[in-house]
Amino acid sequence: MAAVKKLINDPQTVVAESLEGFGAAHPDVVAIHRDPWFVTRAAGTSAGKVGLVSGGGSGHEPLHGGFVGVGMLDAAVPGAMFTSPTPDQIAPALQAADAGAGVLAIVKNYTGDVLNFEMAAEVAEDTEVRTVVVNDDVAVEDSLYTAGRRGVAGTVAVEKIAGAAAERGDSLDAVVAVAEKVIANVRSMGVALTACTVPHAGKPSFDLPDDEIEIGIGIHGEPGRRRIPLAGADEITEMLLTPVADDLGLVGGEKVLLFVNGMGGTPASELYVVYRQARALLEGRGVEVARSLVGNYVTSLEMQGASVTVLRLDDELTALWDAPVHTTALRW
Amino acid sequence: MAAVKKLINDPQTVVAESLEGFGAAHPDVVAIHRDPWFVTRAAGTSAGKVGLVSGGGSGHEPLHGGFVGVGMLDAAVPGAMFTSPTPDQIAPALQAADAGAGVLAIVKNYTGDVLNFEMAAEVAEDTEVRTVVVNDDVAVEDSLYTAGRRGVAGTVAVEKIAGAAAERGDSLDAVVAVAEKVIANVRSMGVALTACTVPHAGKPSFDLPDDEIEIGIGIHGEPGRRRIPLAGADEITEMLLTPVADDLGLVGGEKVLLFVNGMGGTPASELYVVYRQARALLEGRGVEVARSLVGNYVTSLEMQGASVTVLRLDDELTALWDAPVHTTALRW
Repeated sequence: MAAVKKLINDPQTVVAESLEGFGAAHPDVVAIHRDPWFVTRAAGTSAGKVGLVSGGGSGHEPLHGGFVGVGMLDAAVPGAMFTSPTPDQIAPALQAADAGAGVLAIVKNYTGDVLNFEMAAEVAEDTEVRTVVVNDDVAVEDSLYTAGRRGVAGTVAVEKIAGAAAERGDSLDAVVAVAEKVIANVRSMGVALTACTVPHAGKPSFDLPDDEIEIGIGIHGEPGRRRIPLAGADEITEMLLTPVADDLGLVGGEKVLLFVNGMGGTPASELYVVYRQARALLEGRGVEVARSLVGNYVTSLEMQGASVTVLRLDDELTALWDAPVHTTALRW
Repeated sequence: MAAVKKLINDPQTVVAESLEGFGAAHPDVVAIHRDPWFVTRAAGTSAGKVGLVSGGGSGHEPLHGGFVGVGMLDAAVPGAMFTSPTPDQIAPALQAADAGAGVLAIVKNYTGDVLNFEMAAEVAEDTEVRTVVVNDDVAVEDSLYTAGRRGVAGTVAVEKIAGAAAERGDSLDAVVAVAEKVIANVRSMGVALTACTVPHAGKPSFDLPDDEIEIGIGIHGEPGRRRIPLAGADEITEMLLTPVADDLGLVGGEKVLLFVNGMGGTPASELYVVYRQARALLEGRGVEVARSLVGNYVTSLEMQGASVTVLRLDDELTALWDAPVHTTALRW
């Protein structure tokens, strides 16, 4: 125990105890299901509405449980820390979210998540399940846990906007189409200043010298593009924003959502320093930052670092982003 | 620079750059004033409403700027990191918040804050200013920076509830009375697992061995009650909750708000583990947890740790807590 300096009782029980606390704190928004563990809306999915389900390893809170609620997800499936949820867990969540109009599963592109959601959809054979895979991380093409690009903070935009489409009554086909449109127009890249420690691992997930940072880090501490000496925030922000904007092919006159996400251990003051420069760089390209989100939404436990996400907006996506949402982590 | 591993450009500019980012990200909620620096509501104080102003050293974000908006503060005055704002900064914020019904200054009990708000009220002589001092920390009676108890996370409850009273049209006397009622009924205590580093200091604010934690820590890393070996979360939570509940003199049948606050670097999953146990301990005393708040609201930069705050509720305080609020950090 002494090797892991955390507010936990036991690495084996931290996810369950955390979910129990989460459910007890927010009974008006979420309901916690045990054996197997998953989270649904307190009031369930409204009859006839497309159900939205996401999930993945724990340790990225508030993703995904914090996004369950009116206007966003219907259910979330938390695996063990940094470990995909099992098909046994996912299948009943898919069924619970099914209110007769089918279910959209929003899956981050990690091999285990993709495979286990696929198997779960087969198990939940009476539920019509469609799947979209989020792959917004421009840092690397393949990684330790992925074929193709990883799914990272852009997932929040997919869940919010597809959630709003489902809430207004879109069909399953239409919700899938909106989710795919977000995925096609969102890109992210992150940086780590420190590693994080998974409770049951008992030691940091990687070594990062005191004077170096990792550009292009994944949300599990997977290696990124390169390790460089610590630099100023403006310089680091440019290393994140430029590949994101280039990959999107942003041109002057376009409007975007700019989302600066904290990895968990970075003070809010620093996230706003990054936001300031990312915004200035976009404006320097003639791009209008029409919507903004700054905070810890897709974390890597206590990792210090941040990611920059840009979503190209049109009128439809803007209206769906602005639509009311009532979850524990996003509310307007 | 290499000694301080942060997403900043320069320790001397981090507060200003962060405020610029904050203002640019949330123009619908806040307006940033330069020379001197302070934050107001984007739309200003409504005519005839009592103005609410708070402030203090930076590094505790979202406190206080994140609580500016309808239903809560009218203005916030950020000092340098962990340093009181100057009277020159505070006076124009008091004047800006004055819409003809006077201004309540909500001050955390630190010698510099109390003194500088007092001097500012003298400078802003045309504005009627009343002051309440928040002193919710039961850990120590006097500290490095205080005579009497320190003001910590309970400040959020004072600002929210007094803000709701001002919004419903209460007179200055009545808003002062509500704020004093919250102060009389709120208590807090915190724990640190790690120290934090103030950018311009360039080294951690104190030394904490790898296998020890500090019980009763202040929000600037001031010494607490005692240093003990790392323990399990339930045991640590009991060390925080018990003095808080005892000091409040809680008895069975009472209702409370339970607020578990993260110090900045603690994952959300761990805060909910603490919440779960704090709630169980209150329920074990026959106390009903009627309202809850869990998250990073009064931070100490990237410090790992948490505090437990309990507010005794009655019908009036509950209704004011539930009243609509529209700030960047609290919104319902």
